[in-house]
Amino acid sequence: MKKTQRICIITHILTENPNRDYSLGTFAEMFGCAKSSISDDIKLVREGIDAAGRGYLETTSGAKGGVRYVPYISRQAAAEALEELKNAFSDPSRMLGSGFVYTSDMMFNPKIVRGAAMVFAKRFASAEADLVVTVETKGIGVALFTAQLLNLPLAVIRHESKVSEGSSININYFSGSADRLQQMSISKKGIKPGSRVLIIDDFMRGGGSILGILNMLREFDAQPVGTGVVVVAGGRENKKISDFVPLLILDDRNRDKPVIEINPEMLV
Amino acid sequence: MKKTQRICIITHILTENPNRDYSLGTFAEMFGCAKSSISDDIKLVREGIDAAGRGYLETTSGAKGGVRYVPYISRQAAAEALEELKNAFSDPSRMLGSGFVYTSDMMFNPKIVRGAAMVFAKRFASAEADLVVTVETKGIGVALFTAQLLNLPLAVIRHESKVSEGSSININYFSGSADRLQQMSISKKGIKPGSRVLIIDDFMRGGGSILGILNMLREFDAQPVGTGVVVVAGGRENKKISDFVPLLILDDRNRDKPVIEINPEMLV
Repeated sequence: MKKTQRICIITHILTENPNRDYSLGTFAEMFGCAKSSISDDIKLVREGIDAAGRGYLETTSGAKGGVRYVPYISRQAAAEALEELKNAFSDPSRMLGSGFVYTSDMMFNPKIVRGAAMVFAKRFASAEADLVVTVETKGIGVALFTAQLLNLPLAVIRHESKVSEGSSININYFSGSADRLQQMSISKKGIKPGSRVLIIDDFMRGGGSILGILNMLREFDAQPVGTGVVVVAGGRENKKISDFVPLLILDDRNRDKPVIEINPEMLV
Repeated sequence: MKKTQRICIITHILTENPNRDYSLGTFAEMFGCAKSSISDDIKLVREGIDAAGRGYLETTSGAKGGVRYVPYISRQAAAEALEELKNAFSDPSRMLGSGFVYTSDMMFNPKIVRGAAMVFAKRFASAEADLVVTVETKGIGVALFTAQLLNLPLAVIRHESKVSEGSSININYFSGSADRLQQMSISKKGIKPGSRVLIIDDFMRGGGSILGILNMLREFDAQPVGTGVVVVAGGRENKKISDFVPLLILDDRNRDKPVIEINPEMLV
C-alpha cells in the first residue's frame, strides 16, 4: 500500500473516531508494515490535522503507545459555527410570540448541532467527564454529537417513567417556561454511581430543568463537571443555577425586538 | 503546503461532511494551488478511501465539478457493526420481563448507533430522501446519525403538542406495546409538503407507531421512501405495515428464551 493511501486511511479512521486511542500496532497490522513507518505516517497526519484547524493528534506513550484525534475547533471555525447557529436562530419566522421560539428543525439539523457540539467539545475537553446527560427532547442532537466528539456515552432523562426503563428514579421540578411542576425520570441503570457528568441542553430560561438534572445526579451520587446550553434567554440574571456555559444569549425582555448574541467567552 | 498535508486535510473534511459536494475550486482556494494539483490529490484520496472500505468518492462534473464522500460500509464492516449491536442487545441484564428490553443506553451510545446508521445509510443511499423522520425518543440517536451520513435534516415527531412547536398537526394511533391509544404531534413547519421521507425508528412490535408516522406523512402530502427499524420483534408476521427493513430480528415468542438474529438482508 502506498504511503499516501496509508495517510488517507489513518486520517479517515481518526476523524471518524474522535478521542479514541489507536495503537501504532493496530495500524501496523492493518497495513502489514513496520511500526516505524506508521510512526512516520502519523507525523504527516499530525501536520495535516494541525493545518486543518479542527483538532490535533495526541500521542500516548508506553507499551500501548498510540495516537488519538482530539477535536479542537479553531477560534475562526468556532466563530463561523456560532454565526451559523445565530443566523438560524434569528430567522424572524421562528418567533412564535410570547417569547417562544420554534427551534426543532435547527436542533435536529446535523450540520448546525454538530458545529455547536464542536464548541462544547472544545470547552469541556479537560472536564474529564465520563458521561453526557440531557433531558428529552430537543437537546438530544447537540448532546449526542458532543458525546460522540468526546467519545462518551449519553444518558437521556425522560419526562415520564417508561416500562422499558425498568426501575427508575423520578423527581419533580418546576419549569418556568412551562409554568408548572414537571417530572423527570431515568432508569436506575442509566447513570453509574460516582459518574462525572457533563450536562448539555438546548434552551434555558429560569434554569429549572438544569436544576432538576442536578438534583437527579445527586440521587446517583454523580458529580456535575460542566453544563453547556445552546441558548440562554434573559442573560445571566435570575437563574436558579449559576454555573453554565451558553453558546448564544437571547435578550427578549423587549418581546417585539429580541436580540441574540454569541457568548464572547466561546470565541477563544 | 505539502502534498501529504493536502491529502490529509481533504480526507478529514470529506470524512466529516458525508454526502456534501465540494468543488475543486474550494480546495484550490483553500490551499492556494491549481485545480489540476487538487485533481491529482483527490485521485489519491479516492484510492485511500476505497481501501478503507467505509465509502467511496463520487465525482460531480460540470462547471461546479467536484467531489463528495459517500459512506458505504463494506459487508465485513456491516457484519461487525451489527454483531456489536446484537451483542449489546443480547446482554441478559437487559431483559426486564414481559417482553420489555432495556435499550436506552445502547440507543444513545454514539459508537453503537453510528454503526447502525452506517448500515441504514448504505441501504437507503439511493432512496433520494430529502428528510429523515422519527418519533421521540429512543430512535433519535440512530435517526440523527443516519441523517448526518446522508446529509439530510431530521424531523422528530413528539408525543404531545408543545407550545414551542407553534401550530401543529396531531394524530392518534394505537400502540400495541403500550396497549393504548397514543398521540403524535409535529409542527406544521416540521415537514415540507411533498417531501420524500426516510423513516427511522429504534423498535417495532406491531408496527402501530410506524403506521402512525405514515398517517402523519399523509397529512403533509409527504411520501415515504423507506423505513428502517433497529429491532423488530416477533418476526415479519402480524404487522400493521409491510414495507420495513430491520437490522435485528427478535423472536421472543418464548419469553424465557428470546432469540435475536441479524437480518441477513443487511449483509450484502
